[in-house]
Amino acid sequence: MRLVVVGTGLMGGSFALAARARNLFEEILGVEPDPARGRRAVARGVVDGLVDTVPDDADAVLLAGPSHTVAGWVVRLADHPGVLFDLASVKEAVLDEVRALQGTLPGRFVPCHPITGSEKSGPDAADAALFQGSEVILTPGPETDPDSLARVAGWWQAVGARTLSMEPRCHDDILAVTSHLPHLLAFAYLQRVGDRHLAHAAGGFRDFTRIGAADADLWAPVFDLNRRALLTALDDLETDLAQLRGYIESGDQLGLKALIRAAAERRRRFSDDS
Amino acid sequence: MRLVVVGTGLMGGSFALAARARNLFEEILGVEPDPARGRRAVARGVVDGLVDTVPDDADAVLLAGPSHTVAGWVVRLADHPGVLFDLASVKEAVLDEVRALQGTLPGRFVPCHPITGSEKSGPDAADAALFQGSEVILTPGPETDPDSLARVAGWWQAVGARTLSMEPRCHDDILAVTSHLPHLLAFAYLQRVGDRHLAHAAGGFRDFTRIGAADADLWAPVFDLNRRALLTALDDLETDLAQLRGYIESGDQLGLKALIRAAAERRRRFSDDS
Repeated sequence: MRLVVVGTGLMGGSFALAARARNLFEEILGVEPDPARGRRAVARGVVDGLVDTVPDDADAVLLAGPSHTVAGWVVRLADHPGVLFDLASVKEAVLDEVRALQGTLPGRFVPCHPITGSEKSGPDAADAALFQGSEVILTPGPETDPDSLARVAGWWQAVGARTLSMEPRCHDDILAVTSHLPHLLAFAYLQRVGDRHLAHAAGGFRDFTRIGAADADLWAPVFDLNRRALLTALDDLETDLAQLRGYIESGDQLGLKALIRAAAERRRRFSDDS
Repeated sequence: MRLVVVGTGLMGGSFALAARARNLFEEILGVEPDPARGRRAVARGVVDGLVDTVPDDADAVLLAGPSHTVAGWVVRLADHPGVLFDLASVKEAVLDEVRALQGTLPGRFVPCHPITGSEKSGPDAADAALFQGSEVILTPGPETDPDSLARVAGWWQAVGARTLSMEPRCHDDILAVTSHLPHLLAFAYLQRVGDRHLAHAAGGFRDFTRIGAADADLWAPVFDLNRRALLTALDDLETDLAQLRGYIESGDQLGLKALIRAAAERRRRFSDDS
């Protein structure tokens, strides 16, 4: 059993380390366009070696590059005999692009999105425990081969994740709210934060902005691919911000308290252990 | 030496516990309008006992109630012989209110704001280590007695904090950006987060929204008291959000990446150990 990981950064590297720790594959090779990153991936033992392209005899191919590169790889590997799976945080646009180029999804392509991560990136940030206790959302199409789906789900479970299936559009609507909008807000918020602010910031700031240190080359394409759902979520946020502003401008303490209580009540329903 | 803590919640209770651990006072009494909270404060050993009002022989009085209650207490205790200090996260409006009611700040009132906290509240959340390594901003007026200022600064240093002095308006401008606006954004953001989102949220969401669980009765008055600086910060945020939206709507990946890089660069200048 040979796995090829296309993109040896945080997410692909973490799967490689976790799969190695469970002996899921006999050999793990990397395809890495960035030579420095490739050398680090080999040096850290994330992959056994590097290859220029995916060998024909790979049993599994993890497409772990940025979201906007996934469709191109799926099309390129449409006739590859191995099981293909990805990690993109936007699903519908990726599947639409594959279907636009190829007419259909390859049966052995299993679209995946692990609901975990870090603001860090690169093979040095890879962590064998990243998927332990996390959720992986699978968004198979009608074309997806059940055997491939079961094998990929089994690998995720073997590295400690729970799997569930969801419609791609539903996944994108949820992720726009739970992940893409918070990143967008953190990026916007940080524009006016200068050294005079950083000098007097504490734990609340630290946690609120942690996702703001994320990689621009990964996130700009995510915002583009999930534009529909993200702009809807941003519309809603702007409506709620305008209401909050109105309460502050008019000195409406009752309105303000009700809104804050509704927020706090929702947050307290979320387990910090998630 | 006797300390009276008016408000035995997270912040006042933490100072009481820290002061007790360093033997800064021989006795620590609490004034607590909420009977259940008062019982918990005594049961946890946060205070030695409760009193209905501040005794005349108290050497120090910590005004640890919500920000909007501080000015009233300062006026009520204007002729008290003890040193008064507070914890309010808004300074100018509090000092303006005291001066409006009293003509001047009492010389023995030392306005303080410790830059630390938690989304939790109440005496059970009090933590003797809360101020260890934190910063406390002092915003004395020209009326403030240097001896009182030095004593209060000494107490903060004794519980592990660094102290520095700042103009009240400068404090409020900085806190609007570092703390009040993030809380406002978290509260607005959480309005549309439902159970179907919470079920699929992970670490990024957890950290971004942690401050959203804060106490409405504390935060609504803060937004009101710091209205001027907070609305300016919100104006700026809305300008930056509009720019981000424009980049997404027009598919401007270069603009988007530049904005995200600027955010990430600022965030990486902040030490997570702060």
